[in-house]
Amino acid sequence: MSDLPKYVEFHEEGPREGFQIEKKIYPLEERAALVDALSETGLVQIQVASFVNPKVVPAMADAERLFAAIRRKPGVRYTALWLNERGFEKAAATAGVDLDGKLMFYATDGLSLHNNNRTADIMHEQQVNWGEIYHEHGIPLESAYIMAAFGCNFDGPVPLERITDIVRFIADRFDSRGRPVPRIFLADTVGWANPEEVKRRVAAVREIVPEVRVGLHLHDTRGLGGANVYAALQMGVDLFDSSVAGLGGCPFANHGDTSAAGNVCTEDMVYLCAELGIETGIDTEAMVEASRLAEKIIGRKLNGKLVRSGSLEKFRRKAG
Amino acid sequence: MSDLPKYVEFHEEGPREGFQIEKKIYPLEERAALVDALSETGLVQIQVASFVNPKVVPAMADAERLFAAIRRKPGVRYTALWLNERGFEKAAATAGVDLDGKLMFYATDGLSLHNNNRTADIMHEQQVNWGEIYHEHGIPLESAYIMAAFGCNFDGPVPLERITDIVRFIADRFDSRGRPVPRIFLADTVGWANPEEVKRRVAAVREIVPEVRVGLHLHDTRGLGGANVYAALQMGVDLFDSSVAGLGGCPFANHGDTSAAGNVCTEDMVYLCAELGIETGIDTEAMVEASRLAEKIIGRKLNGKLVRSGSLEKFRRKAG
Repeated sequence: MSDLPKYVEFHEEGPREGFQIEKKIYPLEERAALVDALSETGLVQIQVASFVNPKVVPAMADAERLFAAIRRKPGVRYTALWLNERGFEKAAATAGVDLDGKLMFYATDGLSLHNNNRTADIMHEQQVNWGEIYHEHGIPLESAYIMAAFGCNFDGPVPLERITDIVRFIADRFDSRGRPVPRIFLADTVGWANPEEVKRRVAAVREIVPEVRVGLHLHDTRGLGGANVYAALQMGVDLFDSSVAGLGGCPFANHGDTSAAGNVCTEDMVYLCAELGIETGIDTEAMVEASRLAEKIIGRKLNGKLVRSGSLEKFRRKAG
Repeated sequence: MSDLPKYVEFHEEGPREGFQIEKKIYPLEERAALVDALSETGLVQIQVASFVNPKVVPAMADAERLFAAIRRKPGVRYTALWLNERGFEKAAATAGVDLDGKLMFYATDGLSLHNNNRTADIMHEQQVNWGEIYHEHGIPLESAYIMAAFGCNFDGPVPLERITDIVRFIADRFDSRGRPVPRIFLADTVGWANPEEVKRRVAAVREIVPEVRVGLHLHDTRGLGGANVYAALQMGVDLFDSSVAGLGGCPFANHGDTSAAGNVCTEDMVYLCAELGIETGIDTEAMVEASRLAEKIIGRKLNGKLVRSGSLEKFRRKAG
């Protein structure tokens, strides 16, 4: 009926997205247990923590110890986030961090200034420099993220041309150095996307760089997360960031309300794919188990739906 | 980009769906206040209560008094649910109930037996009789609901042919009496739908009865509610049941967990339509206000997302 992909890859961001916005510091062994549970689901990539200023994000101050505490499963990549060279050096010096060559572009100055105290243009020039740093470390360029790719609470709507300009910048500046970026992620950082706009922007990126794999980093801030994922699937998008139990979100997008919706929920979206006949390599029931553990650790009901209702498997089995 | 409708009609079911599953009886004036708030949103139809056995659903025992307590707004229909003749007679005798000629068909015996203590076939023959009852009361036939149209927790998957058989039954038995049913609602009573199946079933119904307006009654039980609405919109479906704050749901589908996801959330889906440029006649901000009131009355966080994050209007205004 449509161009649904045969296989979809989910990159789990719950451990990093979920705990970084919490005021409370959760015990290290509980956070490690969540990563370990996620390792058993079939996920191929789990973002474990960020290497950032511990004064700004105290919940991530023990990132090295957390990496030491997890049980690494062969075939799973355990990644981390960094925002500057200091963070990257720390991640590179930490045993067990799978370093991925990622770049961060900003669709708006507002979000860039808020996150980096620098305008988007300055950040973009720095990304070219990051390409060199990764090259020196022998890390292949992997993904360019375009943050606030659908709109921004600071600067408002983001015209499509802004996104295509950034994509052209990426193509020009990296391809010319012989280091093309194989993946571009459109990140709906603060929940502005709608399904038609997802289709429009994915199509526009592909028109400029048809050889690039387009991924989506979506939040469920305004209840459209699932519809946006489905729209992307209809475009053949086969790469998504997501969070167990829908953990995470941008605190300032949710008025500091950590109980508000966060990232699209991994287990619900894995279930969506399974129902559509799309392979993910992920065991839905094991993901639901990890979601239950996340709720137990955080100590409140989170945003997953499947964790309450269960999948349809037991009913199908019962009906024979 | 697709066959999105220009205008979509939402029928609000929150007051009935939401309170009927609660063990606690909420004060009449609070429930009336919620209906009154919904009346101010631009909604054209609000299901206020059900006329059912007060021993089975004590929360609906005062349906007459509730209808007497609400402030009727011109242009809004205030409807009710009934499951048998006794309930209908009560509704017909109650001042202020807008009687709509609705029929209930069941895709599975399991759900029919659970709800009615009768098989689906017996229920279907009774619907023909309901057509006569409505005719005697001068009520035009309006909607045929097909319950569990996507699957059933008792009987498992529902083959597409089962739905098309029921649609043919409706066409044969009512058209031949000169009383065609103008609307058929596919009801995902227990949350089995997925977006591709929504498209498939809507298309199959239309193939048999192209002159019938197809509506959808969707639940968000497994997190696919928004994706299912979007799939239906892509098919041009312009009629949905929904609940403020995502109230409601089928308690036995959620293991009796009333905090589980219920119906698709009116304000989130109105926001989806607004973002897609589809008119609904409903004021998103007023719907969010009604959702806030629902949370205040029920006394816990409900399933709406927009109520936490707000719509994009304030950010767009700020950005000029």
